[in-house]
Parts: sequence; structure tokens; C-alpha cells
Amino acid sequence: MPDFPKFVQINEEGPREGFQIEKGPIPTERKVELIDALSETGLSQIQTVSFVNPARVPGWADAEEVVRRFRRKPGVRYTALWLNDKGFRRALAVGDLHLRGSISLTASEKFLLRNQQRTLQQNYEAQHGMIRLFLENGVPVDRGSIMAAFGCNFQGEVPIATVVDMVGQILDLGRQHGQEIRTVSLADTMAWATPESIKRVVGAVRERYPDLTLALHLHDTRGMGIANAYAGLQMGVAIYDSTVAGLGGCPFAAHKGAAGNVCTEDLVFMLHEMGIETGIDLDKLIECALLAEDIVGHPLPGSVKMGGSLRALREKLKAA
Amino acid sequence: MPDFPKFVQINEEGPREGFQIEKGPIPTERKVELIDALSETGLSQIQTVSFVNPARVPGWADAEEVVRRFRRKPGVRYTALWLNDKGFRRALAVGDLHLRGSISLTASEKFLLRNQQRTLQQNYEAQHGMIRLFLENGVPVDRGSIMAAFGCNFQGEVPIATVVDMVGQILDLGRQHGQEIRTVSLADTMAWATPESIKRVVGAVRERYPDLTLALHLHDTRGMGIANAYAGLQMGVAIYDSTVAGLGGCPFAAHKGAAGNVCTEDLVFMLHEMGIETGIDLDKLIECALLAEDIVGHPLPGSVKMGGSLRALREKLKAA
Repeated sequence: MPDFPKFVQINEEGPREGFQIEKGPIPTERKVELIDALSETGLSQIQTVSFVNPARVPGWADAEEVVRRFRRKPGVRYTALWLNDKGFRRALAVGDLHLRGSISLTASEKFLLRNQQRTLQQNYEAQHGMIRLFLENGVPVDRGSIMAAFGCNFQGEVPIATVVDMVGQILDLGRQHGQEIRTVSLADTMAWATPESIKRVVGAVRERYPDLTLALHLHDTRGMGIANAYAGLQMGVAIYDSTVAGLGGCPFAAHKGAAGNVCTEDLVFMLHEMGIETGIDLDKLIECALLAEDIVGHPLPGSVKMGGSLRALREKLKAA
Repeated sequence: MPDFPKFVQINEEGPREGFQIEKGPIPTERKVELIDALSETGLSQIQTVSFVNPARVPGWADAEEVVRRFRRKPGVRYTALWLNDKGFRRALAVGDLHLRGSISLTASEKFLLRNQQRTLQQNYEAQHGMIRLFLENGVPVDRGSIMAAFGCNFQGEVPIATVVDMVGQILDLGRQHGQEIRTVSLADTMAWATPESIKRVVGAVRERYPDLTLALHLHDTRGMGIANAYAGLQMGVAIYDSTVAGLGGCPFAAHKGAAGNVCTEDLVFMLHEMGIETGIDLDKLIECALLAEDIVGHPLPGSVKMGGSLRALREKLKAA
């Protein structure tokens, strides 16, 4: 038997991912409604909004307003996304968010050029400025992430050595600013991973950096999300990003309507059925998934919200 | 590294499963169109129709007509489903199908009572009549299956010992009629399985019957289909039933529209990316999945048909 983690930390990213891709417009109060419902599920971290250019991402023009309005549940970390200094300053200005600095590299230069108009080197250099900005504002930098770590629609395969090197770059960037990076998240941004490549990449990084905590950000665009999470569990990975109902979609897939992030309630279902704790109430999470569908007004990809949890069934059977 | 099979046999069940659950009506020629398209993908086995009571399953009232009309591709086994002697006689009468006798037990008595109005004992006894009927008509009986082998919406957990015992009953039933059962398929009929329970049940059956070939019939109703197939591969299982685009649905799920069988093209995607051969052209299969959606007139659950294959992407990148 593999040595599965006893507890898995789920970082819920549904609101941020979902409302940025939906054509909308989705009323601010409905975004707040979903975040408030998620707060009651036992989730300990919820990425709420994205501070991005409203001209490019109109779905998050109301990011500040959402942050001002959602209810704070004690014990929940409410986070936000930003892509540059301007976004970070907005997050800082609105206040009352859990801000953590992260060093963000990307394993595919073609993707980086396309997505952020930067070379690998330019992106590496740009991190210095971001780290300084975080530290000047009292935001610790203890985390890194590598996008496109398992392959790229625009470059193809990503060598494992590139990912391992990039983890080293993240640790080194932190060190240069006196920060110890404890966690690095590997993102399968364009859904190239399979369970075996998850194991190869995680294994190679862990062999080189055995004390580093690894997290996985998985996408389900090619249907591998849950199997990849299972492979991650087999490797002992205990931190996963996911989105309720599979909110999010994928702008890089072959067809419109392709799935995006791995679905939180499907992941939690697997974890609980395997005896791994999450602190989350699956049935409440399923209600949030159905609420998310109601808010976006079209079916979302998750399965358990349609198939039903087994806890509900078991209780019905016990009562019968 | 686990000892993965080098080749996996896929039994495509999309037409039979899909057209039986769809409200329809779906014209006969469109059913034939899907079967003909599937014949061109490299699939070696396609379950085409279901010979069931047309009053209860109107979607298969035209089973004979479909069998008469689809094109036979050399090298493809075209199979059909029946639930009783009447159905088998219809399959026999229409002719030109690949008929194989199977001993079909069910691990949950509550499901059996509900689904076939039989006790475990009555179902066991009924197999004698079916085996005799197969043999009288020159149809060999070399296969068995166990429905609800991983849990049941109406009974709850299914003890592993029950499944192991039932495999013994199948082998014994065969022996009583001079037939050697070489393959037993374990069906997760109501989607209770997780990767770990797949491993436990497959492991227990294999320990008791090491020479028996095991097959898996997996459902994706709670999103575990592909992860469960991966667990099966880790256990060396090399035969899987699945449906193109995830055609089929699940009549036992909590909500209408829940997923049914695990999706063929998602499974084939994983296999190919893991270096396991299937003999199937994934891109042609994806075209069949899109055709299936067009035929049923609503979105179907599979992911790769929306996300796109990596072979197509890799070729585009190579050409660029």
C-alpha cells in the first residue's frame, strides 16, 4: 500500500476561476453568494477574486466590490489572484484578504510569450521586482509555482529537467531575498499530464529537493484530473487546487466548453472514500456545486453533484 | 513501476448503452451511422444493440433492423446484449452477430430483486437454463460477470468475500456444464468504486483465482471512472468496457443527467499517453464522440472530445 497522506489541504479556486471565464454578466451578489456558501463547507482556503485588467477580464471588474461584501468565516483564508504589481496593489488596497507572496515561473517559453509577453529570462528577472514589492508591504514570500509543468499546447513536451531546474530557480530567488520557499505548486495548466507523468515529475523534483512541500494544480481538460490527483496521492502530495463543480473552463482547449480545473467535490469524494480527511462537508459542497451551476446558467463538468454522494445514500440505507 | 499491460482490449458499448437510455426517438439510420463510424476506429469489439422488451426499452425496438443494416468491418466482433432467453433467441434469429455466452451474477440481492425480480439463489439457478440454451445453440460459454461488485445504491457496501465467492460460483457453474470460464468481468454498476477499492477487490479475486483473466466494467457517475481504470491498470487488468463520449447515463444516480459508463476516448487517451497500445485511432474516436453528441442532441460527458487529443497538437507543433 502506498503511503497516502492522512489529511489533504484543498485550495478552492472556483469563484476566481469561474467568474473570470464566464461570458456573464454575473451579478456581484451572486458571486458573493457562492463565496459565502463555500465558507460554510469546511474549506479552509478560498481564492475569491482576480485583480486583473477589467478591459481584458470584464468578469472581474467588480473584484473590489466582491471582496468588500463576502462574509468572513473564522478559520478560512480568503485569497486572491493577481498577475502583476498593479493587481497586487489593488489586492492590498481593498484589504482584509489573506495575502501570500508567490514566485511564479512558467516551464514553457512559448506559453509565457503568448500569455505574458515575456521570455523565460525576462520572467525570471521580473520575479525580483514582485518579491521586493511583497516584502515592502509586509507580505511574506514562502511559495512558488510552475505553470505548464507537464506539457504545453504551444511548445509540446516539457522536459522534466526543466521543471527540476525551475524549482531550483524558485528556491534561489527566495534565498536572494532572505525568504525560504517551503511549498512549490506544479501546475498542469494545459492538461498534458497523465498519472504516470505526475509520478515522474513529482518524483524527480522530490528526489532533488526532498524537504520541499509539493502541491498540484490540476486540470481536467482531457479527463485525467482525478486520476492525476490519485497519482499525486500515491506520491504523497497533500495539497491540491481545485474548483467547485469544475468551474473555470479552459481557454486553450480544442473545443469551446472544454473542462478546466479538476472538480473539488469529485476530488473530495475520492479522498473521503479512501479514508483521507479534508475537513470538508461533501454534501454541503455538492449544494455549492449546484448553486454554481445555477449562477452561471449552464451545466458544469463535475460528476458527484449529479451522481450523489455515498454518505447521503448510506444514511438513507441506515434509516430504512 | 507497476507492471502495466502492454496492450489493452477495449469493448465499446456506446451504441447499446446510449440508445437504450436516450429519450429519443433516434432514427435507425443514425444508430447505424454511429456503429459504422466506430468500425473505422480500430476498435475490435463493439456492442451494438440490446435485445430487450420494446415496451420497457423503446429505444431498442429497432434492434433487429440496426443489426441487419450496419456494415461489417473485417476483424471487428459485433456483439449484443440480452437479459433473458427471449432476448438471446432474438439475437440468434437475426444472425451475423458475435455471440458469446456469459454467466451473469449480481453481488447485491437488493439490486437483483429490484432489477430482475430475483433472489441471489433464483438468479444462480436461472444461469443453468441460460447456459443450456447457449450450448444447445452452439454458443460457447467462456465468460462471467458480476454486477454491483463494488457497492450498491440499494444495499450499500458489498463485502469483498461476496465477490470472491461469486467468482467461484461462476467457475463452478461453467464446470457443471463442461465449460471453462476464462474471463470474469467485475462491474461497478452504481459507481461505488474508488481506485483503492478496485485494487482491493481485484487483488482478492486474483489471489484466490490467479489464472483467471479479469475485466472491468466501470462507471463514471461519481467521477472516478478514469482513476479506477488507472488502478485497474496498476493491477494488470487489460480488458475494459467503455462507451464513446460516455454515452449511457445512469438510471440509479441522484440527479437526472448523471454520467454513466467510463468514456472510451478519455480512457484511450490515458492508455496511449502511458504508452499502452489499444489498436485504436484516438482522433477518429473523437470524431465518433462528436457524432454521438450530434445524434443524441445534447452534450455528453467525455472530456477529450472537447479538450482535444495531444497527437493532433503534437503534429501541428511539428509542422509549425
